[in-house]
Amino acid sequence: MAWLTATYHVAAPRERVEARARALALEQSVECPLEAIGERRILDEIVAQVGGIEHVGSELFRVEIRLATQTLGGDTAQLLNMLFGNASLFDDVEFVDVALPDDVLAGFTGPRHGIEGIRALVGARERPLTNVALKPQGLGVPELAAMARTFALAGVDIIKDDHGIVDQGYSPFAERIPALQAAVEQAVATTGRPAFYAPNVSGTPRDMHLRATIARDAGCRVVLVAPMLVGLPAFRELVDDFPEFVYLAHPSFGGARRIAPPLLYGKLFRLFGADAVIFVNYGGRFAYEPETCAALAANLRAPWAHLRAALPVPAGGMLLERVDELLDFYGPDSMLLIGGNLLIARERLLERTREFVSAVERHEFRKTVSAAPA
Amino acid sequence: MAWLTATYHVAAPRERVEARARALALEQSVECPLEAIGERRILDEIVAQVGGIEHVGSELFRVEIRLATQTLGGDTAQLLNMLFGNASLFDDVEFVDVALPDDVLAGFTGPRHGIEGIRALVGARERPLTNVALKPQGLGVPELAAMARTFALAGVDIIKDDHGIVDQGYSPFAERIPALQAAVEQAVATTGRPAFYAPNVSGTPRDMHLRATIARDAGCRVVLVAPMLVGLPAFRELVDDFPEFVYLAHPSFGGARRIAPPLLYGKLFRLFGADAVIFVNYGGRFAYEPETCAALAANLRAPWAHLRAALPVPAGGMLLERVDELLDFYGPDSMLLIGGNLLIARERLLERTREFVSAVERHEFRKTVSAAPA
Repeated sequence: MAWLTATYHVAAPRERVEARARALALEQSVECPLEAIGERRILDEIVAQVGGIEHVGSELFRVEIRLATQTLGGDTAQLLNMLFGNASLFDDVEFVDVALPDDVLAGFTGPRHGIEGIRALVGARERPLTNVALKPQGLGVPELAAMARTFALAGVDIIKDDHGIVDQGYSPFAERIPALQAAVEQAVATTGRPAFYAPNVSGTPRDMHLRATIARDAGCRVVLVAPMLVGLPAFRELVDDFPEFVYLAHPSFGGARRIAPPLLYGKLFRLFGADAVIFVNYGGRFAYEPETCAALAANLRAPWAHLRAALPVPAGGMLLERVDELLDFYGPDSMLLIGGNLLIARERLLERTREFVSAVERHEFRKTVSAAPA
Repeated sequence: MAWLTATYHVAAPRERVEARARALALEQSVECPLEAIGERRILDEIVAQVGGIEHVGSELFRVEIRLATQTLGGDTAQLLNMLFGNASLFDDVEFVDVALPDDVLAGFTGPRHGIEGIRALVGARERPLTNVALKPQGLGVPELAAMARTFALAGVDIIKDDHGIVDQGYSPFAERIPALQAAVEQAVATTGRPAFYAPNVSGTPRDMHLRATIARDAGCRVVLVAPMLVGLPAFRELVDDFPEFVYLAHPSFGGARRIAPPLLYGKLFRLFGADAVIFVNYGGRFAYEPETCAALAANLRAPWAHLRAALPVPAGGMLLERVDELLDFYGPDSMLLIGGNLLIARERLLERTREFVSAVERHEFRKTVSAAPA
């Protein structure tokens, strides 16, 4: 019998935490009272077991639950269900970590390209990478194409759609993708420096398949997907069907706290195939702590069986003025995403974007990097 | 120009709530500073607007944001993104309601069968319906088939898979579905009373399509799907592709609080096509208040453009002893789901299930029903 270990933070008084942990183990496995179970085999092999219970704060405990891997049946949605299906409905439970045995991990390819593949694609072996967003939604295709060309001329590595740009009347997908890809390719022909347009692939599974096909036919090599919007199982299937793309994952609809950010964005997104993961940076307009961001980035890059390392992409209210601070924090294996803070330059967009690219390239790393791997 | 209204609960001190509301409007539309926007049309037509701000508690405000329907582009995932994409990443924001204009609603078929269709299928014009779950996972196909037969002999209307039963080695989907469907059909031939087996359809989009096809070929008329596990856009596409099924939606992976339960389960699940919606009942092992459950059930049944009414299915730690109380609370347009509390009867499962069916059938409604429609 093989087991995986899911870890939760459970808010409970000390005298009740053991009962709460046992209830959680039942909820996440057989979802019925033990006395309803007649077969010895199910009691021994299927009912989840309480592992360690550790006190982490006043009335807060770290609870490990061991789940039988037999219950997964090799199914992507069922893995999520076993890890945090009904438990997500408990107010007092946060899902904070998971340890998967080798035979479960063997069922996941993870990132097809990862940090090394992205570095090879953009031709940057050691330096941090740069990423910008085409926005706001509402712009027409010619305006977006001009903006994409400007970003590519300025030397940005990856130029992504705003995740709110999909297939609206003012910038239809089938028209936008070839136009923006051509605009970026023209700029690359001028500068001789690689740059990649990453269209936003969203919608129902059929929409996504159609849009990924259009993107591939247009010559795109990188796409943006928000796994929680489209569903993690649908995201995984897209990666399986179009392994040639570098997948840049967006956190939209991911929620702030029910699943700890280092787990959801740092482990699950990587497990399901994201090559690079956008997350909200500390000190911006979201409330993440530096420790949360450091743990998230560390999870993306940590050795994990055969899974390739994925690239951390801090974003969300990023300022050009913070480039040095953030690079020292995240280290060279990272990609900075700046959006609105470049666009406020308006007609000086090219110059301001060049400042961004240059600030990243000329940065000299301090000896110790807070969130970089040891 | 047409707008939809999304409503959020925002935790903020009074002096900061207006600024917080304006930031939320930007986050959920253009996601960049206003000064980055050069086009008047985008400022007028695309940037979201703050509607009412209403004080609802100490440092808690109800904030209405008007979102331009142009930004939806008819896309299912993009609707979720506009409603609660990045906003889900704010700790201080809960998504509590939405009002969609007719042209947006026109793009949604909603439940294909709804309460009326389910009543016609099971042949019960007025009484509340009964629902049971086959569990625990780990049982083999013969044991599950025997249990399904027993439930059908006892007169249960809908007999569903536990949502943890998918395609595991101990009960493979392709073997389980025809066997359980046949077991229920045999019982129906004996009793002459309709009963329906609802297999759990889960997995990636391709898995779901394959499993739905197997279920249809086996003669199943009802299926169970957990929309948040598989992704709401993937759920919607499944409903479009297999409109002949009655869809019973399960709340797994839905989260406890980021989206208010009356909105997520009462409105969004219905909008995306659920005919009946399972949710966690008050007074069981989950922390929902009676008011939350009443509002959720009311939303499922309320008149809403052309959308059929969907059936509330309270569940989660339900006791046979509570049937009368719960029927008085939810009224006749409901379906009670009892799982583990029947299974504890073990060899007396048939008798205990008959008690459940009989308690529901003989219940006499009081004149006023708490959560029933006016």
